[in-house]
Amino acid sequence: MVTSPVVNTYPLSSYTFGTKEPKMEKDTSVADRLARMKVNYMKEGMRTSVEAILLVQEHNHPHILLLQIGNTFCKLPGGRLKPGENEIEGLKRKLTSKLGANSPALVPDWQIGECVAIWWRPNFETIMYPYCPPHIKKPKECKKLFLVHLSEREYFAVPKNLKLLAVPLFELYDNVQRYGPVISTIPQQLSRFQFNMITT
Amino acid sequence: MVTSPVVNTYPLSSYTFGTKEPKMEKDTSVADRLARMKVNYMKEGMRTSVEAILLVQEHNHPHILLLQIGNTFCKLPGGRLKPGENEIEGLKRKLTSKLGANSPALVPDWQIGECVAIWWRPNFETIMYPYCPPHIKKPKECKKLFLVHLSEREYFAVPKNLKLLAVPLFELYDNVQRYGPVISTIPQQLSRFQFNMITT
Repeated sequence: MVTSPVVNTYPLSSYTFGTKEPKMEKDTSVADRLARMKVNYMKEGMRTSVEAILLVQEHNHPHILLLQIGNTFCKLPGGRLKPGENEIEGLKRKLTSKLGANSPALVPDWQIGECVAIWWRPNFETIMYPYCPPHIKKPKECKKLFLVHLSEREYFAVPKNLKLLAVPLFELYDNVQRYGPVISTIPQQLSRFQFNMITT
Repeated sequence: MVTSPVVNTYPLSSYTFGTKEPKMEKDTSVADRLARMKVNYMKEGMRTSVEAILLVQEHNHPHILLLQIGNTFCKLPGGRLKPGENEIEGLKRKLTSKLGANSPALVPDWQIGECVAIWWRPNFETIMYPYCPPHIKKPKECKKLFLVHLSEREYFAVPKNLKLLAVPLFELYDNVQRYGPVISTIPQQLSRFQFNMITT
């Protein structure tokens, strides 16, 4: 038999959540965001971003930690790499910035695992694809999603303007309206893993 | 940098396609299929099926080989394992049955690669999920999709009642109406791979 890679998942209750200073979005509209993307592209070339899938479990089912902005928009923790920055180091930096405590001793030891998906932005538009379309020679962004293996106990400091939600896979699945194309297909991308649900 | 697993893909034109005797579907309706599934479950327990993602390239973009039955319904080559049968050996047996020539010397040396998705059927119904829903203790089917690494040249013998189509990822993506939930999210599951498009 082919063995599936195993991912240990711990109960949501084994993690501690605090708050920290707000982290405001850099852009106040989609148009602003795309305009800033264009300016950065002129300076630095293709944008590379990295995002984390942080897994916990509740009721014997995997849940993903999502950051909620306002009442509807959800995103994975992560962000843009600096030019030339290593993906793993960059993702750790972004996770600490988004979810780490201000005290370095309390920051989780982020264990960056498998790359589970790669999305491409062909133009300065919101639409992304899970492949680089064949006629696109100069994609504008490449976004990689990584599984992050959490330890049994961690402390997360959530910026005061955001909420951290644990969303079950069955809520994400087939729910592109609510979560968008990237997050709503995470269940399919995780289906090849075997979740070792640890109850403590 | 994290390196993506590399998949060599060869042009569709480097493969040869012939025909062989028809392979009729065992069931003539969805209701018949679910009824047969139920009978088999009583005898043998959970059905385990294995399907293959066979990749070729055209115009510098990956294409997947799908078997078309009639004018609309498409499926991946593969099928049900015998009770206790090894997944890899079972998938090779099914691929040879569906696409291998009658002469053993012409049958491709199927190189079964990565498991890219696992789907679960909770009930004797058509709906499947990319996870086993938490309240389901006895799923009725587990279906695994494997990448199969094709050599540069192969001969495929296609049953006369079926068509073998090379469908580009961009056609499958976001096309659940035409291809169903399993096949239409293959582009997302393959996004983490790096395709080495070999032109010969």
